[in-house]
Amino acid sequence: MLDPFIFVVGKHSMYQLYYWPGLPGCGEFIRLVLEHAKVAYEDIGLRQGFEPIVAMKQTIAGFAPPYFVHGETTLAQMPAICMYLGQRHGLCPADHGDSTRVLQLLLTISDTLSEIHDLHHPLSIAKTYEQQKDAALQCAQEFHQNRLQQWITFYSKLLIEQNWLVRNNLSVADLALFQLVSGIEYAFPTAFIKLISPELLQHQAHTRRLQPLKNYLNSSRRQPFNETGIFRHYKELDLA
Amino acid sequence: MLDPFIFVVGKHSMYQLYYWPGLPGCGEFIRLVLEHAKVAYEDIGLRQGFEPIVAMKQTIAGFAPPYFVHGETTLAQMPAICMYLGQRHGLCPADHGDSTRVLQLLLTISDTLSEIHDLHHPLSIAKTYEQQKDAALQCAQEFHQNRLQQWITFYSKLLIEQNWLVRNNLSVADLALFQLVSGIEYAFPTAFIKLISPELLQHQAHTRRLQPLKNYLNSSRRQPFNETGIFRHYKELDLA
Repeated sequence: MLDPFIFVVGKHSMYQLYYWPGLPGCGEFIRLVLEHAKVAYEDIGLRQGFEPIVAMKQTIAGFAPPYFVHGETTLAQMPAICMYLGQRHGLCPADHGDSTRVLQLLLTISDTLSEIHDLHHPLSIAKTYEQQKDAALQCAQEFHQNRLQQWITFYSKLLIEQNWLVRNNLSVADLALFQLVSGIEYAFPTAFIKLISPELLQHQAHTRRLQPLKNYLNSSRRQPFNETGIFRHYKELDLA
Repeated sequence: MLDPFIFVVGKHSMYQLYYWPGLPGCGEFIRLVLEHAKVAYEDIGLRQGFEPIVAMKQTIAGFAPPYFVHGETTLAQMPAICMYLGQRHGLCPADHGDSTRVLQLLLTISDTLSEIHDLHHPLSIAKTYEQQKDAALQCAQEFHQNRLQQWITFYSKLLIEQNWLVRNNLSVADLALFQLVSGIEYAFPTAFIKLISPELLQHQAHTRRLQPLKNYLNSSRRQPFNETGIFRHYKELDLA
């Protein structure tokens, strides 16, 4: 379902991404798809700051960014936007069952992201990390005792006999898994070294070598993780 | 994309749903689609108990139930299964942008569900509610002060000028919204009376009148909410 139009739009891209500037967050999962599909897009938040994002929220495109605009289609929710782009740009299988399986994995990755986000914000997103640090420390303990290992085992099993998650074909689920594992390495370096599997390390290496993704990852457009996003490195929330 | 085969399979259904018996939970969102689409399905957990669900988990169909089997397609994640069925049985638009919009809303409903689940389990799903009641009370306060009103406003705005969420056509997103709002009414009756909007009340009434859904809702197959699912009525977590 590749649309040839996208290759001729030049600077006036048909795609617009709205996401908070200053953090990779959920927006980065969409950027990886856009960059690897090599399609032109406007990164509105990075170019114009917060204002247009807040304005877009008023049009009730979605409950929270990222937002995505393509002609008359306005979308929110990272996995939905990744599916939309994957289906248009050859990063999602044509078969209905297989493509739903890609969606399933995007949703599981999204669940893992929520769990990691809620480690530093277990009680309320309206409060700072420091205001809920005691609860965060309790959550982190459970996460390192059980959950992180369970997540790693789940994704690793899918990669035992293949390089890519669904039918051994690269899909948007693989790009999302790459970003998830990269974030875990940033946020919990000690736990990462102790728990990460050979399958996931190999999947990271394979993804990193993909072109044109590799060019993007090595460019200044690739934003580093920091302590305002989903993946935050607080030493006390890592394994001791 | 209605598959005529489904109407001739009789007792030997082509669809199998695997979900914990004894609670509506996430499985009920899928049952609403199956029942309204009037397709035959086997409700494995209800008929055979826990064992086959645990066995299915071993086949790494997904991180957690509900699981869904259709021939060689094995799926997990409630929104993915609802999309799969919606696209097969006329409960999802054919247009790619509109169908992704339905997915987006399913994901937003799923986020609301997670937030409501985490009210009674803010710190760990490995602990009981009683073991994390203090944190739960803090979460509930924030939920009633801000979040519940925000969610209600978001869904209500989408229904100001139409009966159904996307292009005024009934979709799986409407069935999911119905179940979400029903659950909120059960879990937080005082907050519900105070905060619910005319748009959502009307959407509930319209959905309840749909046939064949109405037959299901009035049947003994429809499972009541209780304190083992997502929506739990703990008086102390409702508005005072």
